[in-house]
Amino acid sequence: MRREGHLIIISGPSGVGKGTVCTALKAMRPELKVSISATTRKKRPTEVDGENYFFYDENGFYELIQQGELIEYAKVHGNYYGTPKAYVMDQLDAGEDVILEIDVQGAMQVKQNMPGGIYIFLLPPHKNDLEARIRNRGTEDEANIELRLHNAQEEISMLHDYDYAVINEDVDECATLVSHIIDAENQRIDARLMRKYWEEFHD
Amino acid sequence: MRREGHLIIISGPSGVGKGTVCTALKAMRPELKVSISATTRKKRPTEVDGENYFFYDENGFYELIQQGELIEYAKVHGNYYGTPKAYVMDQLDAGEDVILEIDVQGAMQVKQNMPGGIYIFLLPPHKNDLEARIRNRGTEDEANIELRLHNAQEEISMLHDYDYAVINEDVDECATLVSHIIDAENQRIDARLMRKYWEEFHD
Repeated sequence: MRREGHLIIISGPSGVGKGTVCTALKAMRPELKVSISATTRKKRPTEVDGENYFFYDENGFYELIQQGELIEYAKVHGNYYGTPKAYVMDQLDAGEDVILEIDVQGAMQVKQNMPGGIYIFLLPPHKNDLEARIRNRGTEDEANIELRLHNAQEEISMLHDYDYAVINEDVDECATLVSHIIDAENQRIDARLMRKYWEEFHD
Repeated sequence: MRREGHLIIISGPSGVGKGTVCTALKAMRPELKVSISATTRKKRPTEVDGENYFFYDENGFYELIQQGELIEYAKVHGNYYGTPKAYVMDQLDAGEDVILEIDVQGAMQVKQNMPGGIYIFLLPPHKNDLEARIRNRGTEDEANIELRLHNAQEEISMLHDYDYAVINEDVDECATLVSHIIDAENQRIDARLMRKYWEEFHD
């Protein structure tokens, strides 16, 4: 019963641990493809173009935008980042499930372009926990921590635009639940899946 | 993030192995409640009223029907069988997930009364496999086997009224996927769940 792949959007407020959960998920399910971002940021010596990122200069990036080649994009600390449509679509067409880890603002752009995706929101177990995670990064001053915490609560209130919510209390438990969500979505009944089944049933 | 339980309907054509899958599922998740049927069939010495079945005489059963106390019912080999609403509703209200194993005709009655349930259809991997399972019961003559096989195919075509389909090739794999579907449904975003989360987040 093979079919077109799913785009799985893993989002949630800053500090919730999206990256850690995605790494654990990928370790559990190595068959998952991970969306590769385009960026105008300088390539670091260890990075490989087309593996870590697709690297572009600003003109190249503008062209992607103008040609509608990006599912979403944003400018962060002076550099552009975006999600190229071509890579994602190629994987989905080949029947692969694709993970896209992205912040809440980006996820809402993605939803405009890919409404059929599976939108999963990661939640911190408690306000104090979220605050501790933001503080533990040790990179922000007090005013910035307050601001991030405030923003995180704003972001959590955008939850109703998502399909699933998973609390990230324990990384492995959280990744396991995300993995089960992917399993479940692969068993959902749709017309194409059924035609395929019916052919194999009588084969 | 606790909420009202889910009613999980496990259905599929005759011979697909619904009972075996439900037994495996229950072994994996002992916390699942299993819906208890009402019947007019005579109680066997080993059976306990309210555990294996709720036993009624015909008048008692008619009363259940008339008072709308059954989610579904049918007459099989001269005896009535039905699913009492009270037991299911009590469990759901207490936040328990309830399994209801039922044939395709029964499931469609249930859907009229409980449209919010999770409808899972078990599929045989192949027509030959289904035929083998029906034959292996050894209880039916050739004409009956043909009829059951024909009916099974009719039943499979009612798949589009369900939410999920799982192929029962390996019982444990099948039960595991059903278990993952339950996990996923428990992470679905709904207003009540979110209110609860929000309270605990700020607690």
